[in-house]
Amino acid sequence: MKMPGIEEVPLTIEVCFTPKLFPEIRTKEPFIVVLTDILRATTSICAAFENGVMDILPVATHDEARAMKERGFLVATELDGKKLDFADFGNSAFNFTREAIGGKTLVYCTTNGTKALAMAGTAETIAMGAFINLSALSAWLVARHHNVVILCSGWKNRFCLEDALFAGALADRLLPAGIFTTNCDATEAALDLWRIAHGDIRGYIEKAAHRHRLKKLGLDDVLPYTFTLDSTRVVPVYRNGKITNEQ
Amino acid sequence: MKMPGIEEVPLTIEVCFTPKLFPEIRTKEPFIVVLTDILRATTSICAAFENGVMDILPVATHDEARAMKERGFLVATELDGKKLDFADFGNSAFNFTREAIGGKTLVYCTTNGTKALAMAGTAETIAMGAFINLSALSAWLVARHHNVVILCSGWKNRFCLEDALFAGALADRLLPAGIFTTNCDATEAALDLWRIAHGDIRGYIEKAAHRHRLKKLGLDDVLPYTFTLDSTRVVPVYRNGKITNEQ
Repeated sequence: MKMPGIEEVPLTIEVCFTPKLFPEIRTKEPFIVVLTDILRATTSICAAFENGVMDILPVATHDEARAMKERGFLVATELDGKKLDFADFGNSAFNFTREAIGGKTLVYCTTNGTKALAMAGTAETIAMGAFINLSALSAWLVARHHNVVILCSGWKNRFCLEDALFAGALADRLLPAGIFTTNCDATEAALDLWRIAHGDIRGYIEKAAHRHRLKKLGLDDVLPYTFTLDSTRVVPVYRNGKITNEQ
Repeated sequence: MKMPGIEEVPLTIEVCFTPKLFPEIRTKEPFIVVLTDILRATTSICAAFENGVMDILPVATHDEARAMKERGFLVATELDGKKLDFADFGNSAFNFTREAIGGKTLVYCTTNGTKALAMAGTAETIAMGAFINLSALSAWLVARHHNVVILCSGWKNRFCLEDALFAGALADRLLPAGIFTTNCDATEAALDLWRIAHGDIRGYIEKAAHRHRLKKLGLDDVLPYTFTLDSTRVVPVYRNGKITNEQ
């Protein structure tokens, strides 16, 4: 409803290509941060909720993860793509079967995603974005009616292609809703990359440096799942130290 | 010449989208940094050498620029696109006519470019890249036979489209030479953006947020010049506090 005498200011979308650039964002508060770490944290977290995990406690260091394991929690953690000895799982989405995690609390630690989460930690609401929950997340964001900052986890603080692609995909879903605008070059670039890639995401992502690393570690079995749109309706949201499903 | 028993390691290209990410680069030394600040520092510096400036002393702050003015130097400086009162010039390429700067030393201070120069200052050789010297710079880099890091000045530490486009244009010139390779997602993204934009750079750049700011300040008269390829053969290089033309 248009209020007489009150100018409607459109909501904004901003893309931040690595956590290190998060302090430079221009979006006015209040905003929702969408965190993405396509390979792998946010895809795996969505998978865990799809398979019935009750909640997820993200931790920032392996020491914290180990301490939580000693307290009896189920723990997923890896270093550069490899499961650590003390952990129950690595961070691959395929570990989180309903049998393994249904109804339970999971402690999740990962190299890039948790760093980004820590960086975005001042935001009140941080939603987890992945290709597998793209449509559900888009609808949730439109309904929330806040400015959106899409925060790419990147790879060791550097730009990475798969997270940028997701940022473009999400912006491409949000902008036609008519309530968002963008004045951010990173959003424009992400949109263009997505327009190139969307017909064949896996083919496009072949050139991503991060993917080559995953392949070297023998962890690329999960890629078809990772790049399939909308296999789940979950919207995992981080608030007060805990991730729960708000959908 | 291929040496028996010695494996030839290809030279690498890496793109860094903002100065803040420069500490995260992975390129092994020795490397040449190509600094770009399309709107405007590196374009203007190329224009100044094309018009016969002897050398350029970049300074990082307005206070330094003012001190150099008091010592009798010609000074170009601006704040957010506007010339400062004490300066001889703003930073637009059109100020640097042969009459004004031929054979002289120019002190140059600018918001984004100089910050990036300070960041890259540990590199032994920093070349200035712009669309107007693209081919000359490419040939110079091929002849130098070093790894290349393309450092985008960005806009207030954020990603900006016109610098990323230039990075893609330069990588697109260097890779076919057969002596370079890249394993850098930012380079791949820049190449794709360039492939979209190269047929109509000015049309593409219409959506750049930085350009909108320039237009608001009435400074867009220089854009056709800025986005015209190869109007000069100069290759300005920064060494030991001074920029000279090495072509």
